[in-house]
Amino acid sequence: MMLGKPRGLVAQVAELLCRFPGVGPKSAERMTQYLLSADAGYVHQLADLLHRLKDEIHPCQRCYNTSEEKLCAVCTDPRRDPQVLCVVEQPKDVMAIEKTGLYRGLYHVLGGRIAPLENCGPERLTIHALMQRVRDDGVREVILATNPTTEGDGTALYISNLLASTNVKVTRLARGLATGTGLEFVGKDVLADALEGRRAF
Amino acid sequence: MMLGKPRGLVAQVAELLCRFPGVGPKSAERMTQYLLSADAGYVHQLADLLHRLKDEIHPCQRCYNTSEEKLCAVCTDPRRDPQVLCVVEQPKDVMAIEKTGLYRGLYHVLGGRIAPLENCGPERLTIHALMQRVRDDGVREVILATNPTTEGDGTALYISNLLASTNVKVTRLARGLATGTGLEFVGKDVLADALEGRRAF
Repeated sequence: MMLGKPRGLVAQVAELLCRFPGVGPKSAERMTQYLLSADAGYVHQLADLLHRLKDEIHPCQRCYNTSEEKLCAVCTDPRRDPQVLCVVEQPKDVMAIEKTGLYRGLYHVLGGRIAPLENCGPERLTIHALMQRVRDDGVREVILATNPTTEGDGTALYISNLLASTNVKVTRLARGLATGTGLEFVGKDVLADALEGRRAF
Repeated sequence: MMLGKPRGLVAQVAELLCRFPGVGPKSAERMTQYLLSADAGYVHQLADLLHRLKDEIHPCQRCYNTSEEKLCAVCTDPRRDPQVLCVVEQPKDVMAIEKTGLYRGLYHVLGGRIAPLENCGPERLTIHALMQRVRDDGVREVILATNPTTEGDGTALYISNLLASTNVKVTRLARGLATGTGLEFVGKDVLADALEGRRAF
């Protein structure tokens, strides 16, 4: 807050920083103070990168992941298997799966999930493009990796129905106990999933 | 992290956001993802403001508080008493005191505190300018409001010695129990301060 000048530059910066996830007014103020005292070169560099982030990053033309090029780094990697598609809601989900280092196929980012209450129907997602890829690219397997929520499950069900007419294999991520939790702490839905999906020891 | 492209735009933004106080790699990534999905107008506005923050905000020519003008909003407020100076370490301390709404004098921002271990001697602070203000502006009282730390107290002592030769009244902020704590939780230094500074009931 700029003293006696309620809409000063400092106040405006703090206000915009406040919109960041997990940043309240107190943290936004601390961050603004940090920027005021920080090296000018650093702050100018950050500002330039923010401009570029919006100007230069676009959805990959094939999978809708974020990309600085027409096609994203996963789609252009010749070592990836183009016949396996992992369908996720958002680019951040791609990032989460990439971190495991275990997945070698490609992705398809829906751009959200079917949520009737939020007026988000299937036509607002990239489902049409997904069906086209499945038809045109000789896809063997589609892994439905939407979030384990009501909407995510609904979206997966919707897509699996569409894919039923093709001869592609449709799978979804395993449900069960999260490694590191205790039985006493997990909800009954999770335990039900874990029981239903039990595997031979 | 940009997939397969370790120094992509997204990674660079996350890296710079990581330097913010209280922001670790996880939060920086979440913030970057937020920026990616956020409205472009918002992000460009934030970037512009960051540039302006470094280009347009300078120390006030009188008190060294942050200011968009030559003189800061406190110094130019005719309702403030120019004969009382509150000496603080940083502009954020000005902000903290202003929030109480109780102080009606002016400020003097030192720009740090005397810290021999960090090679920060008195000559790197605005102490010379403070002495000049005291001499030239008919100052009645100087309130030493440096932080209640070893360095802050040392800085206050140093300045009070310099001011001893003038006939200005030198005070410091009260020490004692922080409202809301319990006696059982406070350290012995705090209790010693509270006892020493006890007041008639």
